[in-house]
Amino acid sequence: MSDVGKKQSPGVSQPRRGESVRARKRLSVFAGALLKEWKRLALPLTDERVVVAVSGGADSAALVLALGELMEGGRFGVGVVVAHLDHGLRGEAGREDARWVEELAEGLGFEVVFGRAAVRERAARTSDNLEQAARRARYEFLAEVAEKCGARVVVTGHTMDDQAETVLLRLLRGSGAEGLSGMEAVRALRESSSDALPSRESSEVLLARPLLSWARRAETEKYCRERDVEFRMDLMNEDERFARVRVRRQLLPLMETFNPRVAQSLSRAAELLREDAIVLKIAAEELLKRASEEEKAARGERGAFMKASLSVNVLKGAPAAVRRRALRLWINGERGHLRRLELVHLLGVEKLLVGKRGARRAELPGGGFVELRKGRLLFYVK
Amino acid sequence: MSDVGKKQSPGVSQPRRGESVRARKRLSVFAGALLKEWKRLALPLTDERVVVAVSGGADSAALVLALGELMEGGRFGVGVVVAHLDHGLRGEAGREDARWVEELAEGLGFEVVFGRAAVRERAARTSDNLEQAARRARYEFLAEVAEKCGARVVVTGHTMDDQAETVLLRLLRGSGAEGLSGMEAVRALRESSSDALPSRESSEVLLARPLLSWARRAETEKYCRERDVEFRMDLMNEDERFARVRVRRQLLPLMETFNPRVAQSLSRAAELLREDAIVLKIAAEELLKRASEEEKAARGERGAFMKASLSVNVLKGAPAAVRRRALRLWINGERGHLRRLELVHLLGVEKLLVGKRGARRAELPGGGFVELRKGRLLFYVK
Repeated sequence: MSDVGKKQSPGVSQPRRGESVRARKRLSVFAGALLKEWKRLALPLTDERVVVAVSGGADSAALVLALGELMEGGRFGVGVVVAHLDHGLRGEAGREDARWVEELAEGLGFEVVFGRAAVRERAARTSDNLEQAARRARYEFLAEVAEKCGARVVVTGHTMDDQAETVLLRLLRGSGAEGLSGMEAVRALRESSSDALPSRESSEVLLARPLLSWARRAETEKYCRERDVEFRMDLMNEDERFARVRVRRQLLPLMETFNPRVAQSLSRAAELLREDAIVLKIAAEELLKRASEEEKAARGERGAFMKASLSVNVLKGAPAAVRRRALRLWINGERGHLRRLELVHLLGVEKLLVGKRGARRAELPGGGFVELRKGRLLFYVK
Repeated sequence: MSDVGKKQSPGVSQPRRGESVRARKRLSVFAGALLKEWKRLALPLTDERVVVAVSGGADSAALVLALGELMEGGRFGVGVVVAHLDHGLRGEAGREDARWVEELAEGLGFEVVFGRAAVRERAARTSDNLEQAARRARYEFLAEVAEKCGARVVVTGHTMDDQAETVLLRLLRGSGAEGLSGMEAVRALRESSSDALPSRESSEVLLARPLLSWARRAETEKYCRERDVEFRMDLMNEDERFARVRVRRQLLPLMETFNPRVAQSLSRAAELLREDAIVLKIAAEELLKRASEEEKAARGERGAFMKASLSVNVLKGAPAAVRRRALRLWINGERGHLRRLELVHLLGVEKLLVGKRGARRAELPGGGFVELRKGRLLFYVK
């Protein structure tokens, strides 16, 4: 970390005339793989600007270096805006990170935008922990930068290792398919209030992770070394009080003794479960619509003034996997959020459907409840 | 292990007259939980015989002891047939296990049936490894015993720990929802040729696991100690060359440092994914039917003599999660088995659908292939 700013821009010389053909042949394996995934994800190749989030760690450094290589090789004509947020957690080291990123970006001929957040204060003010507060601050910053630049896409350097860690953290918590499907390679940057698989809508800024499906962390480090760039270390990434750090340093290495390609296995499982979740979400939306329309039809004219309600009969006939997702969508729609809603609450609502004696009401966390009355479920906000 | 046969039947005294009411009150927590789950699974409570697989380990010993307690307490009137298979892997220790199980069963007043298998020879003869060969031999033996006894249900002592281990082993291999849903609490004993969630059919012998959804291994050991029964140890359960043993002794304990209730989390995830898989299987069956009927309709009369084929258009319009399951069902139906069929083969068949130049044929493992011709997929056995 002492020689920050010394080695940040080697190998980023301007291509000489007549060299472009040779340069095309010489694309590194890493940059070649990035280009392939970039195209697969249908990310822009010319005529616009993309925002690239760069912390200074190996992953984002490799990402931005490879984009530089692609540009130099004539494969890529997008205006790259490097965005770096100082979370205010690391004092002088944070300021050094920022200087390092600035020199890296300038060496590559990229624009660079900085931001600073007071994450500790933000965490103290909200119910978020430090990691959550940092994450929120980062994505807000990236959204702002994208808006200012008129960029349609924000790109991050999340790797397959990050994906494997995410899947394991979710597994440790007992998530279902949605949680276990980990991160998406492309999604809307602004997270929807529902946590159920936000869709890729045309008007929204996209968050893209072109390293997610293939790059191992070891590869990003190797590529940085090949480019003779000494990436920055974040001591928070070494702090074993964070569960993610322990997953990275203890759990994944132990799992690799069973199967050296376990990160790939986890990443594949995540992809399969994501595809399952998409189908089940559509089925749940259809069920919710039917349960609501059946109710409206049964109520007739008077229905217009009544509370949001669902037909018990329609819900009863549906398989549990679809019904629970429909109830979740319903509660999200009525409450406007899913905060603190756990499986146990959905099971409580489901119990109303079997009509056990006494069970007429299921409480939701943070007030509000669902009531069973005359063959319908009614939603009450507190 | 030296005092085998000394402590096997304490506390199994006949209830004295007039004690039954007191006995009902005194049901142990373990036996009470077993009874609750036994009822939830709709397993027989009177008038028939069930086969209980007993190895001599803590799990199956606790299961059979608790059934004895329920019977003694007047809660349970089923004829228990204890079945024990000597796998021929442990020599004298194996014969000691058998004697121990015999004394335990007799002390409880249960019938007992023994079998012996030559698992090592069986493994050498087939492509199975030792674990697989032992498993197959065991289930064949249990099916035979059930048939001879006229029993409708075979019960095993698999616990939530076994479930968590199974889920983790599948995760290490990169399974999707079906694999990650682990073991079922009740399924047909005879495994169907498809590995996709065998259903519970009325005419078949059932395999039931009434400890699976709630009992931890530590609880079965504790209950054995409470009953003053020294269960047997299987040295194979200590042999860290087996992946399952290392999952039990290394991976699960590490995961418990993140979440002490991780076995519950894994078990819950398995249950949720099983419910998802049921819905997706039904959707796949419907898709397969549509793709096949559309083809038949398009071919008209001539179709009767043609090879099994599917409509590309119908498959193309379906979501990946359903389409892949439909292709899997199709191949299983045409080949009669799913052996060695991996995701990569299904992806190969899917590639035919997008109609890339040159891709007209997808090979299947062990010969056979799927061909694209004139808007249909055709299946060929080699």
